[in-house]
Amino acid sequence: MFVIPELSKQFDAAITNRINQKTKPLGALGQLETLAAQLAQIQSSKINELVTKLAISKPSLIVFAADHGIAKHGVSIAPSEVTQQMVMNFATGGAAVNVFCRQFGWQLDVVDAGMLAPVDDSFGIIEQRLGQGTEDFSEQPAMSMEQVQKGLELGSEVVKLKIQQGADLIAFGEMGIGNTSSASAIMSIILDIPAEKSVGAGTGIDETSLTKKQALIQQALDLHQVSIDEPLAILQAVGGFEITQICGGILAAAQQQVPVVIDGFICTAAAMIAKLINPSIQQYLIFAHSSDEQGHQKMLDWFDVNPLLQLGMRLGEGSGAALSLPIIQAAMSFYNDMASFEQANVEDVVN
Amino acid sequence: MFVIPELSKQFDAAITNRINQKTKPLGALGQLETLAAQLAQIQSSKINELVTKLAISKPSLIVFAADHGIAKHGVSIAPSEVTQQMVMNFATGGAAVNVFCRQFGWQLDVVDAGMLAPVDDSFGIIEQRLGQGTEDFSEQPAMSMEQVQKGLELGSEVVKLKIQQGADLIAFGEMGIGNTSSASAIMSIILDIPAEKSVGAGTGIDETSLTKKQALIQQALDLHQVSIDEPLAILQAVGGFEITQICGGILAAAQQQVPVVIDGFICTAAAMIAKLINPSIQQYLIFAHSSDEQGHQKMLDWFDVNPLLQLGMRLGEGSGAALSLPIIQAAMSFYNDMASFEQANVEDVVN
Repeated sequence: MFVIPELSKQFDAAITNRINQKTKPLGALGQLETLAAQLAQIQSSKINELVTKLAISKPSLIVFAADHGIAKHGVSIAPSEVTQQMVMNFATGGAAVNVFCRQFGWQLDVVDAGMLAPVDDSFGIIEQRLGQGTEDFSEQPAMSMEQVQKGLELGSEVVKLKIQQGADLIAFGEMGIGNTSSASAIMSIILDIPAEKSVGAGTGIDETSLTKKQALIQQALDLHQVSIDEPLAILQAVGGFEITQICGGILAAAQQQVPVVIDGFICTAAAMIAKLINPSIQQYLIFAHSSDEQGHQKMLDWFDVNPLLQLGMRLGEGSGAALSLPIIQAAMSFYNDMASFEQANVEDVVN
Repeated sequence: MFVIPELSKQFDAAITNRINQKTKPLGALGQLETLAAQLAQIQSSKINELVTKLAISKPSLIVFAADHGIAKHGVSIAPSEVTQQMVMNFATGGAAVNVFCRQFGWQLDVVDAGMLAPVDDSFGIIEQRLGQGTEDFSEQPAMSMEQVQKGLELGSEVVKLKIQQGADLIAFGEMGIGNTSSASAIMSIILDIPAEKSVGAGTGIDETSLTKKQALIQQALDLHQVSIDEPLAILQAVGGFEITQICGGILAAAQQQVPVVIDGFICTAAAMIAKLINPSIQQYLIFAHSSDEQGHQKMLDWFDVNPLLQLGMRLGEGSGAALSLPIIQAAMSFYNDMASFEQANVEDVVN
């Protein structure tokens, strides 16, 4: 379904050499160097030529919103209505992700992947509704296999359209009251850990609610005995409409060799499913930040990655992904514009 | 010598309330919230009125360069000549700090605080030379008390001039082959720890050189028995010309209530001395990043702070400070522009 090109290794030596010739001690730019190398590998593979000017001209961030049947148990600090209220907040430009997108130059789109109720057309939301929220996955599968497949397709289509329109960096955000429950369940299945190890406080529930949330997710895990060999079945059992569409979007971007910025807990859960579907996607992923949600670090360990930012955030919306853009651009700038030892007449004491 | 105003507490409740009314779960923007509150406290204190539009219009980064007598022992990967070569690289725009300053809009100035030899006038370097490099502090004091006092004054003067010219955020960078030795010695004295705990690999020396560097610094610590009650005597014994001027610059900025961005290991050592001189400075400090240099974390613990970035960098030059600007601006943007629950008609489930 998704064919992801492997990155060419033929430019690796030249890229490493270019980075090591910059006027700085070897490795002294830390993660910026790893990131620059990754972007250079992607962009060079794509045109089959060593790229010495990395460029991102149209970064595109897509927020997928959906509701979750599990939310009726009060696993979140907010009722499901807040999903729609926050989507209107996105539409009118008042949320954190709007502020950061404006500041850093992301084009922002919002997709209704299946909220309880659609919002008025005038808000400019892209309608890709898989239903009126998922089913309560503590009692039954969150969705049908048809919905999973439709969701992957819809997520993929909107990303392809953005890329057609020039997007050369794709990030995802999400809004969905109850979606940390879904992401925790996905993580529990993939890492084979009980709910008490995967379920955290989300955006801020108390101790009693946390215990209840953990018990509920464990009940779901016991009910759905899904294997990690069937990633689509995981989405069907405990997924969310937004998570499914983001998963399709990640696969589509990687397929077109466009780097993908992964936000926090929810988006990383979608990326885990995408990696089970096709492990080659990881070459195209940039992990933006480490969420304050307890389970996120375990997910990042599964990918064996170290994200760009650790700001103690736990907001979702793609806010962490949005914030990472200037750091990504800094990695490109040093690769593009820093002088080499030779150019600057600085003694090359490090190579 | 330096009178640092205490921040007014009268706006704290209003600032906290403003942040908590934003459409997000309580505390969900993590360190951005702490930073926004700090900036709001500083700017509100300054005009004695609650500031609801935080602004930084002229961020100014000043790199101080100097040489170190201790470098003759080969404690660095590079010889002292590289200090001057890198200063010319700064002057011609090819170094990492140039690239990041251009990208993020810092005005960049370079000060010769006392390199082995001055560079040609045509390079536009600000000359504030305290000498031709410090003395070898493993054998004698790095400088005289007159040089310490002159250095604090010169660092202070250049910062005051920048502020007069409109600078409303000040960051410091440094270049000086051998200056991690000086910073390590300062740290050892202030934290009362032996050299083996404070001396790291700098920008990349090997194991043998590291052992030698540690022994040399320990020799210096044994030679100069300085108390932390005499911060100027610490500078005299083991300081550097750039570290001394940066220390003066930090004090001057705090005195004028202008927030100061602290870069990595060397600048943090300067900030430690500044804090010993006047503890009130800390209210004005923003810690940009956690350096990969081993001792930096211990310094940050002494301040009890958590810096904005952890990118595994160990370059100096102010590169970490430069990179932190978009994050600082993001803290201001959300404080300025995010909608409140009331404005956005979102249920306030968190307050």
